[in-house]
Amino acid sequence: MTKPKLRIGMVGYGFMGRTHSNAFLTAPRFFDLPRQPELTAICARDRDRAEAFAQNWGYGSVETDWKDLVARDDIDLIDIAAPNNMHMEIAIAAAEAGKMVMCEKPLGRTAAESQKMVDAVEKAGVANMVWYNYRRIPAVTLAKQMIDNGDLGRIFHYRAKFLQDWTISEDLPQGGEGLWRLDKSVAGSGVTGDLLAHCIDTAMWLNGGIDSVTAMTETFVKEREHALTGKVEPVGIDDACAFMGRFANGSLATFESTRYARGHKALYTLEINGEHGSLFWDLHDLHRLEYFDHRDDGRTRGWRSVHVTDGDHPYMDKWWVPGLSIGYDESFTHQAADFIMGLDGMPAAPTFADALKTDRVTDAVLRSADSGRWEAAS
Amino acid sequence: MTKPKLRIGMVGYGFMGRTHSNAFLTAPRFFDLPRQPELTAICARDRDRAEAFAQNWGYGSVETDWKDLVARDDIDLIDIAAPNNMHMEIAIAAAEAGKMVMCEKPLGRTAAESQKMVDAVEKAGVANMVWYNYRRIPAVTLAKQMIDNGDLGRIFHYRAKFLQDWTISEDLPQGGEGLWRLDKSVAGSGVTGDLLAHCIDTAMWLNGGIDSVTAMTETFVKEREHALTGKVEPVGIDDACAFMGRFANGSLATFESTRYARGHKALYTLEINGEHGSLFWDLHDLHRLEYFDHRDDGRTRGWRSVHVTDGDHPYMDKWWVPGLSIGYDESFTHQAADFIMGLDGMPAAPTFADALKTDRVTDAVLRSADSGRWEAAS
Amino acid sequence: MTKPKLRIGMVGYGFMGRTHSNAFLTAPRFFDLPRQPELTAICARDRDRAEAFAQNWGYGSVETDWKDLVARDDIDLIDIAAPNNMHMEIAIAAAEAGKMVMCEKPLGRTAAESQKMVDAVEKAGVANMVWYNYRRIPAVTLAKQMIDNGDLGRIFHYRAKFLQDWTISEDLPQGGEGLWRLDKSVAGSGVTGDLLAHCIDTAMWLNGGIDSVTAMTETFVKEREHALTGKVEPVGIDDACAFMGRFANGSLATFESTRYARGHKALYTLEINGEHGSLFWDLHDLHRLEYFDHRDDGRTRGWRSVHVTDGDHPYMDKWWVPGLSIGYDESFTHQAADFIMGLDGMPAAPTFADALKTDRVTDAVLRSADSGRWEAAS
Amino acid sequence: MTKPKLRIGMVGYGFMGRTHSNAFLTAPRFFDLPRQPELTAICARDRDRAEAFAQNWGYGSVETDWKDLVARDDIDLIDIAAPNNMHMEIAIAAAEAGKMVMCEKPLGRTAAESQKMVDAVEKAGVANMVWYNYRRIPAVTLAKQMIDNGDLGRIFHYRAKFLQDWTISEDLPQGGEGLWRLDKSVAGSGVTGDLLAHCIDTAMWLNGGIDSVTAMTETFVKEREHALTGKVEPVGIDDACAFMGRFANGSLATFESTRYARGHKALYTLEINGEHGSLFWDLHDLHRLEYFDHRDDGRTRGWRSVHVTDGDHPYMDKWWVPGLSIGYDESFTHQAADFIMGLDGMPAAPTFADALKTDRVTDAVLRSADSGRWEAAS
Repeated sequence: MTKPKLRIGMVGYGFMGRTHSNAFLTAPRFFDLPRQPELTAICARDRDRAEAFAQNWGYGSVETDWKDLVARDDIDLIDIAAPNNMHMEIAIAAAEAGKMVMCEKPLGRTAAESQKMVDAVEKAGVANMVWYNYRRIPAVTLAKQMIDNGDLGRIFHYRAKFLQDWTISEDLPQGGEGLWRLDKSVAGSGVTGDLLAHCIDTAMWLNGGIDSVTAMTETFVKEREHALTGKVEPVGIDDACAFMGRFANGSLATFESTRYARGHKALYTLEINGEHGSLFWDLHDLHRLEYFDHRDDGRTRGWRSVHVTDGDHPYMDKWWVPGLSIGYDESFTHQAADFIMGLDGMPAAPTFADALKTDRVTDAVLRSADSGRWEAAS
Repeated sequence: MTKPKLRIGMVGYGFMGRTHSNAFLTAPRFFDLPRQPELTAICARDRDRAEAFAQNWGYGSVETDWKDLVARDDIDLIDIAAPNNMHMEIAIAAAEAGKMVMCEKPLGRTAAESQKMVDAVEKAGVANMVWYNYRRIPAVTLAKQMIDNGDLGRIFHYRAKFLQDWTISEDLPQGGEGLWRLDKSVAGSGVTGDLLAHCIDTAMWLNGGIDSVTAMTETFVKEREHALTGKVEPVGIDDACAFMGRFANGSLATFESTRYARGHKALYTLEINGEHGSLFWDLHDLHRLEYFDHRDDGRTRGWRSVHVTDGDHPYMDKWWVPGLSIGYDESFTHQAADFIMGLDGMPAAPTFADALKTDRVTDAVLRSADSGRWEAAS
Repeated sequence: MTKPKLRIGMVGYGFMGRTHSNAFLTAPRFFDLPRQPELTAICARDRDRAEAFAQNWGYGSVETDWKDLVARDDIDLIDIAAPNNMHMEIAIAAAEAGKMVMCEKPLGRTAAESQKMVDAVEKAGVANMVWYNYRRIPAVTLAKQMIDNGDLGRIFHYRAKFLQDWTISEDLPQGGEGLWRLDKSVAGSGVTGDLLAHCIDTAMWLNGGIDSVTAMTETFVKEREHALTGKVEPVGIDDACAFMGRFANGSLATFESTRYARGHKALYTLEINGEHGSLFWDLHDLHRLEYFDHRDDGRTRGWRSVHVTDGDHPYMDKWWVPGLSIGYDESFTHQAADFIMGLDGMPAAPTFADALKTDRVTDAVLRSADSGRWEAAS
Repeated sequence: MTKPKLRIGMVGYGFMGRTHSNAFLTAPRFFDLPRQPELTAICARDRDRAEAFAQNWGYGSVETDWKDLVARDDIDLIDIAAPNNMHMEIAIAAAEAGKMVMCEKPLGRTAAESQKMVDAVEKAGVANMVWYNYRRIPAVTLAKQMIDNGDLGRIFHYRAKFLQDWTISEDLPQGGEGLWRLDKSVAGSGVTGDLLAHCIDTAMWLNGGIDSVTAMTETFVKEREHALTGKVEPVGIDDACAFMGRFANGSLATFESTRYARGHKALYTLEINGEHGSLFWDLHDLHRLEYFDHRDDGRTRGWRSVHVTDGDHPYMDKWWVPGLSIGYDESFTHQAADFIMGLDGMPAAPTFADALKTDRVTDAVLRSADSGRWEAAS
């Protein structure tokens, strides 16, 4: 019996175009999905490169204008893996065309953009999701299950960091294909939208809403050559951003992100401290969850390093055998699978509406960095 | 321009049938291969399950007798992912039919079996390879490059362990589909062929041949119910095996494997100590290579934890960005890619002839465990 | 040839009375000191317990009123290991009596108190020091040497945490001998003066002055029984405090401390990120310094775990052999030794004047937590 | 009330003379001992250096001939911290003079020497102990308590390593004061007696007797200049030694030691795997015990890193507060305290008779390395 198809039109063939394409190819091999994803069309402005991408990943056709893609009636789902400044326009058009929409994070460059996108998908009543993939690292999902199960008791602290070191050189230009994340007009913000958005999405999923924040940003390198104009231009993005805040449940938040922390490639860490126990996770060793249970016998109590590779761990019954880890890309595979499984039942999170809440926090963070005051975040 | 196809006939749909199938599907997405692998046929005795497997992985057809598979002229490569007792017969037949042959490790149940397989592929002049996948974990490949580059200087010690804990319960039966590794007639040996074979393959690749060994084995649970007969029968395999030895280069070997080490799921570790430096690797954190360089300044010298996820690390330019790790299965993807890239040039290792050398060591190990003496291993 | 004596009068026989006494006994065994410390008198209100303490540690005599101790002319140095609310009065009297003064941290309960203490020792011209012992953990001292040597280049980030979990239970009383740190009138503040003061002292030593801060405090348990009155009383101290700030050198500060982080007993960590490299240290493994040097070859670059136990590491030529670690108490021994060695030359830091700067930061932190605004810290 | 004195005559002022002296000075400050140790006399051939040592550590007098020391009637205990070739003669004479005897490990250079020493102390009925100090690292003592409590269930494996790297340079001479451990006539053997003896002592304490062994030794540098003769002489010691064996309880032993493992200063590790759980300890982080409890809930099970610094951990109620670690030297302090506390009750282990068992194993190991066969070890 053949399954109904889910015909995908992908916009963008960069880093995220690859992770999404791989996810849709891999998900049906490892998960029993109600619909069969089909890589129907890839859309990108450079036809030759789009053709090459299509051949490599098995896309059936190529478009060079996303409006043409959205207009096609053989497409069920528009997946937006283009730079941030394209998200809103494409998503709204796709929703208005009745397509399901998936969008790479952050949703919009600002909460105002995101709000319009939420309005569009909700008005159209189309399935929608934002690729906050880290929720679906099995160790992170396990953390969620444990917290929801009450294993930690009352929560006192949540802290997260996302530290990188790839923009320290002053010779690095801003803008253009590989470096649009340094161009404020394209990216919207620097580490706040790129890295802290991940931290905030996970934090609110695990620990509930954030009420208020106070923040600090810094741009260490003030001017960089722009790759598109060839001219030295002021850098508009935040190179580093830290904030403190208060969650609705009374716990304290401390967050930090930077691209100037030597030795850290993608050090996304999170820790949550509760009355009964604590959890810690680090993207650099993504298959482990560190867990402290105060209820263990005192003399033999210690942080447990849980190697999250067993069949009773989230998602891991689909993969190999205990001790054999999966990687970064499987988090996208899990998200693709969950999205498809949610189409005929409980929609999978985070939806656009969920992601909007994250953007409200990042907006408040940037506002506070300007004002020097606490700002409401919800 | 379309690439020539590499038409694959797979035997076996268990754990290894899945890893191999995934590898052949994934390799061409990430590597620029001279031939396009095609999953032409899957062969397994149970037709219904074989059909389901074919549908899941996209195999074009199904066979239930491997002799029929070998006889097909639309197959270029026979890939043997069946239990060990099937390896020799299938491989020899495939070679005689002029097929390329890939075989899951260990090659044969004994060096005598393996010798016949080597003879067959060499006589037929067909490409051949054994799936010792751990060579192609990027951290392990990096170790190989460093050693070949002389970074460690004269080698003094090589030690490896492969520790598991999944057979401790006396209630676990032996034999049958999921547990044939406990059945000596099918597996050939216990941890020696299953786990130490991996350790030895990597060791000889990194550090050269092993001349002599002295070994110790133990079977902790003497009798288990046999899943196929329903009767309690003596356990013939080694539950644990340790050996010491001497490499041809004068360095000392210490190896240990067991399925009775609580807390270790698949703890394959290796360490090599040389005059100038040392390397350590652990499958549980497979994306890291620990490196000590004695030539660093003394006051700031320490073991470096290299997160092997950068573009200049082996294979990693094909994947994501620094800091984002790949998993276990990518080692098979790399091996499939290397095999295909080697077809029109330098054949990729380990060939059957390479794997035979490993089997000679495992044979010597088991011989020594019986004799209580040092045994020649090459 | 006998050395001149340094006759010590100790005030307080609690936790810190023990560490200081041990330091003065041990220092001359391992360091070649210009003066021989002598435990001349111990002062504490309970004579019986003071006698027992004197016998245990070898003090020559006992006083029960610190004014009598200060008045003795056979005492060269008054060492204050009493609770915080006693520091100012004793220190000023000791200075006025012409004694050298050492004081457990924090110097005063507020910068205003500390200022008076600084004035007193400077007016009297007596040697003085505050027991910020963590500077003299060899790994921390090594960090100082590396930073001063320019190994890290321009500094971008400094972060520190001091996390504990010992006051989570609501049944824990406040006040009294073992719990005066929970009593605001005695301690001055909660974690800010107790824990963050350590973090700030080290931070400014390593990375220079802090210009401004914004802070957040929380008292999770609002009322506790007071051990002295037996009544349930409001808790005045901060259970947790986090702050962000800017160093004079342009780098960003993120600090956090709490006594509500399950699983952390005394997790004092610090990290500093510079252009060329980064350093990380953790009190829980105090004999290690983690160092990342970006100038290492890219393929084999990684965080180095430096086991700071070699003869060319700070202080370690005085102890054992490489690989054998020292503990927490040796940091006090080093401080005692450095103080004595500094008496006849360059005075050892941190002096009272140094510690006053720390108190100015903690004051600003507490002020900001009240005002919700950035506050000047120097 | 004054305590009776324990008057100590120390032989040797090297590394071990310092650790023992420090232990006897420190023990009574932290432990409530029935007798007060007194550093009565130090004995060493060089009078000037002995005088300096006496002044530094507070010894009351100096001897230059150990026979004079043994003959003194104001000495209760002879503590032998001289090189191995002196142990037997001094110990026997001390016992015959009715003195208590403590001896640095290994007891004798061979089991035959040790046997005579056991005979002497047993005939004389004098208290005796060997300084296998690692038993009294709190984490190791905790392991002992857990094993004795049955926490691990049936034991399957015990493995230990002691890896160093300080003799790799061919320019290092052998013999003389700092290097007698490389001189076979003085040391008796190389790493076997120096390092494996520690591993074996702990192993048999934790896991019972060793029945049989098979071993391998190597001398990587065959000739070295002798520091005393100035001539290049053959090296007689074992630079590396590994052995496998069987414990009386049926578990398997794998041991290795070397001074040629780059990057390891004093990496003494031990691991024990049982039916219910496993333990791991590493001298480089001596304050931690790693514990895996299979009976924990499967989804949140992992190796626990126990920071052995709490008041309910062995010995730790005598020291500081949770999270603050002690160092290497405290293991000697604990041993001194336990010895003194055992004088009037249950004698503390390991006695000479206990240490003799260790020497029987090291003898068997060296015998097997020669014979190439399994040798009985008890």
